[in-house]
Amino acid sequence: MSQTPPERDDSEAWLPEVQPEAYGISGDLVRAVSEALERHDAAEIRRLVADLHEADVADLLENLDREERAQLIKTLGRDFDLEVLTYLEVPVREEIIESLELRQLAAQLSDLDSDDAVDIFEDLDEEDQQRILAALPKADRLVLEESLRFPEDSAGRIMQRELLAVPSSWTVGETIDYMRAAKDLPDDFYDLYIVDPKHQPIGYVPLSRAMRTRRPVKLTEIMNEEVRTIPVSMDQEEVAYLFRQYGLVSAPVVDDAGRLVGVVTVDDVVHIIDEEAEEDLLKLAGVQETDLYSAVLDTTKARFTWLLINLFTAVAASVVIGFFEGTLQQIVALAVLMPIVASMGGNAGTQTLTVAVRALAMRDLSAGNALRFVGKELLVGVANGIMFAVVAGAVAWLWFDQPMIGVIIAAAMLINLVAAALSGALVPLGLEKVGVDPAVASSVVLTTVTDVVGFLAFLGLASLFLL
Amino acid sequence: MSQTPPERDDSEAWLPEVQPEAYGISGDLVRAVSEALERHDAAEIRRLVADLHEADVADLLENLDREERAQLIKTLGRDFDLEVLTYLEVPVREEIIESLELRQLAAQLSDLDSDDAVDIFEDLDEEDQQRILAALPKADRLVLEESLRFPEDSAGRIMQRELLAVPSSWTVGETIDYMRAAKDLPDDFYDLYIVDPKHQPIGYVPLSRAMRTRRPVKLTEIMNEEVRTIPVSMDQEEVAYLFRQYGLVSAPVVDDAGRLVGVVTVDDVVHIIDEEAEEDLLKLAGVQETDLYSAVLDTTKARFTWLLINLFTAVAASVVIGFFEGTLQQIVALAVLMPIVASMGGNAGTQTLTVAVRALAMRDLSAGNALRFVGKELLVGVANGIMFAVVAGAVAWLWFDQPMIGVIIAAAMLINLVAAALSGALVPLGLEKVGVDPAVASSVVLTTVTDVVGFLAFLGLASLFLL
Repeated sequence: MSQTPPERDDSEAWLPEVQPEAYGISGDLVRAVSEALERHDAAEIRRLVADLHEADVADLLENLDREERAQLIKTLGRDFDLEVLTYLEVPVREEIIESLELRQLAAQLSDLDSDDAVDIFEDLDEEDQQRILAALPKADRLVLEESLRFPEDSAGRIMQRELLAVPSSWTVGETIDYMRAAKDLPDDFYDLYIVDPKHQPIGYVPLSRAMRTRRPVKLTEIMNEEVRTIPVSMDQEEVAYLFRQYGLVSAPVVDDAGRLVGVVTVDDVVHIIDEEAEEDLLKLAGVQETDLYSAVLDTTKARFTWLLINLFTAVAASVVIGFFEGTLQQIVALAVLMPIVASMGGNAGTQTLTVAVRALAMRDLSAGNALRFVGKELLVGVANGIMFAVVAGAVAWLWFDQPMIGVIIAAAMLINLVAAALSGALVPLGLEKVGVDPAVASSVVLTTVTDVVGFLAFLGLASLFLL
Repeated sequence: MSQTPPERDDSEAWLPEVQPEAYGISGDLVRAVSEALERHDAAEIRRLVADLHEADVADLLENLDREERAQLIKTLGRDFDLEVLTYLEVPVREEIIESLELRQLAAQLSDLDSDDAVDIFEDLDEEDQQRILAALPKADRLVLEESLRFPEDSAGRIMQRELLAVPSSWTVGETIDYMRAAKDLPDDFYDLYIVDPKHQPIGYVPLSRAMRTRRPVKLTEIMNEEVRTIPVSMDQEEVAYLFRQYGLVSAPVVDDAGRLVGVVTVDDVVHIIDEEAEEDLLKLAGVQETDLYSAVLDTTKARFTWLLINLFTAVAASVVIGFFEGTLQQIVALAVLMPIVASMGGNAGTQTLTVAVRALAMRDLSAGNALRFVGKELLVGVANGIMFAVVAGAVAWLWFDQPMIGVIIAAAMLINLVAAALSGALVPLGLEKVGVDPAVASSVVLTTVTDVVGFLAFLGLASLFLL
């Protein structure tokens, strides 16, 4: 079979390269698969996909269009590994799940680690869930049902049930012998847990330490007693904090009675960290979630709400301008200059706001240093306010040859940059305090403040001193 | 000693709670330490800090003020663990390093894992680096010097040198015996590497698998041959992609000759993922880096540049308004309404832009799906453009009782939301293509486009049809 890479399509030369790196999938591969699908060349398709990691298959699927995806899944048939689903964006995942045969889904779901199975299963609609549950072996069904009773985004949902827990009386040698004989261990694990007779964890031993210890030594002699347990209902954001803060690779999950029921591993946490960072970034811009693969209609609806709120705030700013219609009629230069003050306030406030939102999310900002933060931002606002007052004042003076207009824009600029600093710092802190996600609501409140203060200060001062 | 928690200071009741959770440090702890420092109660200070994880000590330091920090470090003396430094924000870290004795620094640096030592060392100024290098044992000095020759933010800087590599002839039993005898192994590790006589990795065995295998089995029989090696010069962003994509816990680093020289572990990668996410978020808002702990002057300077660029774009928008001074003089209602069109364009464009920047950073957006993305955003822009044209048109008509003003704002709104969608999608793609970080430059280009198009469309149409 020819190994010549397919020719590049130069019409897309202006687009960024698809991952030119050694890892991940290449644009060439996507095109090769796409062409093989068009030719219905099943052997070539299978060859191209055969050695790919599940995560790469997921990327490949996301780079194909809807028809190509369906055809690829059909061609792969039983060789399509369900683990691929865990790497897919939700809309694509749902689309593929719908195209899979129920029997295949049920059979393969049993083979996955419990956290992956839950991850796939929780996205299905009620009806599909019931049908698949009915098709599952009883043991798997019970585990899945139990996992789904935990709240969404809780540790119970992301933990895997497979783990290695041994009694406190065991030695290293006994543990190794048990591991060699046991069949039901997880694929990969990094710590082994020592539990008391109530199955509560009393310590853990990293595998590297267990392997370095002589057989007769008891595990309790080498265990770390400081077990950072995760309650099964802990929110995943909290779990991510714990892993990040203490550099964990895995952590034990306990139920209400303190019994060891599962393990969260760092690979799941990396995804949560990505998700949380993405959420904050997108929420600040008024986007609900990554909608790269959502339908146009869903995306339009989701973004409409945010834009509607912004329309209200823009109208509010216009109402403020409306108070000064008389002034504007007499000095039209004010209409030309007024957006500068509002825009600078918005940008300066967004700088402060973004630092605050990120710091709150990372828990770097709290009651202990909030006052200092607000104070510092106020000073920065005053400092930049003075500098931009001078610059904007000079520009306005030269432009309209009226020194008083320069003085007025300078004063309005200083006022608005101070207002921006204060609201950029206080709005997210206040929202966090009353339990509203500062990433969602901060920026709309901020720009309302900076628009209103900006127009009010500039036009108000002008009305007082220029008329 | 009394265990009563210090009283809460109600004057800070409006501030968000310091981590009320079971992990991390509490506001009470910060206050207790602060009070003990004031009383110069060394015993109490040591007691409060004794059982804290290094990461928590770092958080505690960040929550204290400069004088308290210096005093705490002095009180802890030799009990202050240098590993704490790796968890600190850079400005605080530099401050503390300067206050430490050179001899203590040199002595403790030798005890750290090589990646932590490099992490701390690379932030020192040239002079301090030289003095500490001179004070280090020769072996440690050579390792540090070699690490520092790798480019900043490369795999060479974040890897640790300590690793377990064994020849391909070894059995599980031989490996375990070696591990029990060896002294120079890393604190924690998750995979062992099998190397050929040239010290090139030919496979790896997860510790969990090695432990589950009987002693006489050769490692080559159970190893994974698909080793995803990391070139020592690979950028850390690339490293993070690799870990995230394949759910890795550790990965081997090789030099130009393909020889195994180190290992990157997931805890370092989690920090990189946090850093990269933070960078994108902050850059979009025109902030250089987390400046929570930077001095007011540094912060002011860093943000000044961004605001200055924004001033230019705001002036550019004002110049556009200036073209229509005559029109504005005749119909002052236009001045009242014009910010609405510009503001809606800016917000809608930011939605698209943020999705694009994030998708580019996560490599979800590439040549394979860029055209589809642009097409979809265009449709969303048209759809929301039509809806907001209707809403804004109705508002303007009712407000000023002039149907034609409603028609004009509607047309301008549609034009600007389409322009916003196109530039929100194309600007980041274009910047990425020419090698400019889209997170830094996109939003300033976008708002210039939406301001200029917004004012031009609204005032231009008004000049044509209302005069």
